Amino acid sequence: MGVKAVLIVCDGMGDRPVRHGHEWGTPLSAANTPNLDELAAEGVNGIMDVISPGIVPGSDTAHLALLGYDPYEHYAGRGVFEALGAGLELQEGDVAFRANFATVDERLVIKDRRAGRKGDKRLEAAIDGMEIDGVRVILRNTVGHRCAVVLRPLEEGVKLSKYVSDCDPHADGVRVAECKPLRDDDAARRTAAIVNEFLRRSHEILKEHPVNKERAERGVPPANFLLLRGAGEFFQVERFEERWGFRAACVAGASLYKGVARFIGMDVLHVENATGDPNTDLRAKASAALKALEEYDLVFIHVKATDNFGHDGDFEGKKRMLERIDEELIAEVREVARSDTLIAVTADHSTPVSVKRHSGDPVPLLIHGEGVRRDDVSSFDELSAARGGLCRLRGADLMPMLADLMGFFKMYGT
Amino acid sequence: MGVKAVLIVCDGMGDRPVRHGHEWGTPLSAANTPNLDELAAEGVNGIMDVISPGIVPGSDTAHLALLGYDPYEHYAGRGVFEALGAGLELQEGDVAFRANFATVDERLVIKDRRAGRKGDKRLEAAIDGMEIDGVRVILRNTVGHRCAVVLRPLEEGVKLSKYVSDCDPHADGVRVAECKPLRDDDAARRTAAIVNEFLRRSHEILKEHPVNKERAERGVPPANFLLLRGAGEFFQVERFEERWGFRAACVAGASLYKGVARFIGMDVLHVENATGDPNTDLRAKASAALKALEEYDLVFIHVKATDNFGHDGDFEGKKRMLERIDEELIAEVREVARSDTLIAVTADHSTPVSVKRHSGDPVPLLIHGEGVRRDDVSSFDELSAARGGLCRLRGADLMPMLADLMGFFKMYGT
Repeated sequence: MGVKAVLIVCDGMGDRPVRHGHEWGTPLSAANTPNLDELAAEGVNGIMDVISPGIVPGSDTAHLALLGYDPYEHYAGRGVFEALGAGLELQEGDVAFRANFATVDERLVIKDRRAGRKGDKRLEAAIDGMEIDGVRVILRNTVGHRCAVVLRPLEEGVKLSKYVSDCDPHADGVRVAECKPLRDDDAARRTAAIVNEFLRRSHEILKEHPVNKERAERGVPPANFLLLRGAGEFFQVERFEERWGFRAACVAGASLYKGVARFIGMDVLHVENATGDPNTDLRAKASAALKALEEYDLVFIHVKATDNFGHDGDFEGKKRMLERIDEELIAEVREVARSDTLIAVTADHSTPVSVKRHSGDPVPLLIHGEGVRRDDVSSFDELSAARGGLCRLRGADLMPMLADLMGFFKMYGT
Repeated sequence: MGVKAVLIVCDGMGDRPVRHGHEWGTPLSAANTPNLDELAAEGVNGIMDVISPGIVPGSDTAHLALLGYDPYEHYAGRGVFEALGAGLELQEGDVAFRANFATVDERLVIKDRRAGRKGDKRLEAAIDGMEIDGVRVILRNTVGHRCAVVLRPLEEGVKLSKYVSDCDPHADGVRVAECKPLRDDDAARRTAAIVNEFLRRSHEILKEHPVNKERAERGVPPANFLLLRGAGEFFQVERFEERWGFRAACVAGASLYKGVARFIGMDVLHVENATGDPNTDLRAKASAALKALEEYDLVFIHVKATDNFGHDGDFEGKKRMLERIDEELIAEVREVARSDTLIAVTADHSTPVSVKRHSGDPVPLLIHGEGVRRDDVSSFDELSAARGGLCRLRGADLMPMLADLMGFFKMYGT
């Protein structure tokens, strides 16, 4: 029986120091986080390049690395994780996309990329199951205007490809982009052709749909187009429990992280009011995680909102979110966890408020629990962590280290 | 003419901190080791993941890495190193095993896995050289009940494989296990069949042998079975001197380490009373190494017993062994070595007394000698080393660093 562990990933938590008021530092160094600081003081700290130094990770590749799957080998493409996170079951050979309900005019110029941020299950039903050239199209409207779209071959020999371009131009006032093959092969050409046919047919159905007439009457932008992006190809990977020898569960709000967890065979727990937004119920996540520890060896808790504040360049917002995490999540986990439960806290990447995007700066990492080599660090932040006993690691090192500390390990050699 | 170097590897020296008496620390931090501490203070220090972070090394893979051979490319399997360590000459295509003389009853249930820890050269002679299906079996009884067994193809085209299961169930009171192929190919099936036939025939010979009748009369468990495990396939690797450009010798007690050294073409020096046990003669090892420096550029000294105390969970024993190493080995080497001789001290892996097994925790490393970038570390232990000027390295980095400091190097590029 091994030791249990909680892995807390605060999305985009890492930052670059800036002058703020009379001080100089990062949102994390400025935040009042007594619980994190105590864990740092009693634990071992370091900085971690989630992919490798200077490489700017996406959230999907970063999480694959943190959870012990080399993304250069296991990256299926964003659409796959979004579709899995939306609860869809995928099959080998499926190609999946993220999608938005959008509002376009008669010339297919985008009036609102998000169709007033409102989807509709009746519109989903009108499209879902469409068949085009031996492929079934599965549509799922997840939250607001957001959707997942899956192309599933219905016949042996119909090969699809993730190497097709986005039709979402990421801007209003421009025309919808045509989907183009990004490789010179049959699968990419076929996939692009099916996507374009799907966009045409679904637009025909949506623009005439009574729901959109109702919306127009109520002044809601009609959801008359599906903008696809982020094609991914699903394939089976070794399940987490087989790979690492222990059972893991995921507590997350945002669908991407649930999708990555499902992709690698982790169980995803439903937590009421875990939204993936700044209003998420952190105490509910903490208590769901602690309960799950009765059944699972490792619980991975994801908190999204730190990243949102980074993208917004909101120093104070990010700082306050970190203070909330400290009080409502870290404190709860610390208090209730068994004394020998390992607690690891880190980020998937930095999202510095000064640059408002993901960056390649390493993230801080602390590991607290019996047997760790305590260091002199007494504050949890990017600058202090760099002086810690873990020195500098890579994201791929995290899961082997936790597995070893938990007592689940495979010796290499004899 | 390059600088000379001594590399001292204390097996399993790395540990995890625990509370002991009124203190908190590791056996190494608790031990009184003035010589190691002076070397640390005058040298440069760091922590090292012998394979990579969190990966738990076996002793064989770890030593390949430390001596500059990527184990993922050069690992031949334990049996090969044991056979070489026993002094056997191996040929390309040989499959080698570790073996025990054991005592079994008429139903092949194991009564004593180690046959009273007593072997016999006359029993070796009765079995050695047996031929089965185009394969010669070579048996060497090394120390006590321990043996090495080699299967050598006598004809072109007879291919053997290391992918066969152990027949040693590692427990008394259970039946000897049948050797099974672990891959679905001819070589594995042939090897398993030959092993099983060897077990049968050697048991027939051993159980009737006069030596075992004598043993029975004296109350010594008969050595009537050979338990094989750890199959390895021998192949030639680039010799150490070719690879690194300088000559190296090995001073070790235990056969595994001598075997790894022979495998890579290092000379192995015979040292009287270097036993691989806690009673080993450390001063004899030191003086043999210093003498060897006249002829060799690098001498690798291996000390096994620190690992034994780790496996036993014996904090005080490990601490005292480290104190003996400091006084009887490190002090001697320091005193007699030329002032410009490099001294590197490290471990092949951690064997924490708290978990009584190898672990993935990094090991401390110090390098002392002219030109190294001295840091602020003044004590040689796992926690202090992490603050040293070498930061965090991998085992594969050690030999290139030593070669460079010694003045033997190949520039990469121009």
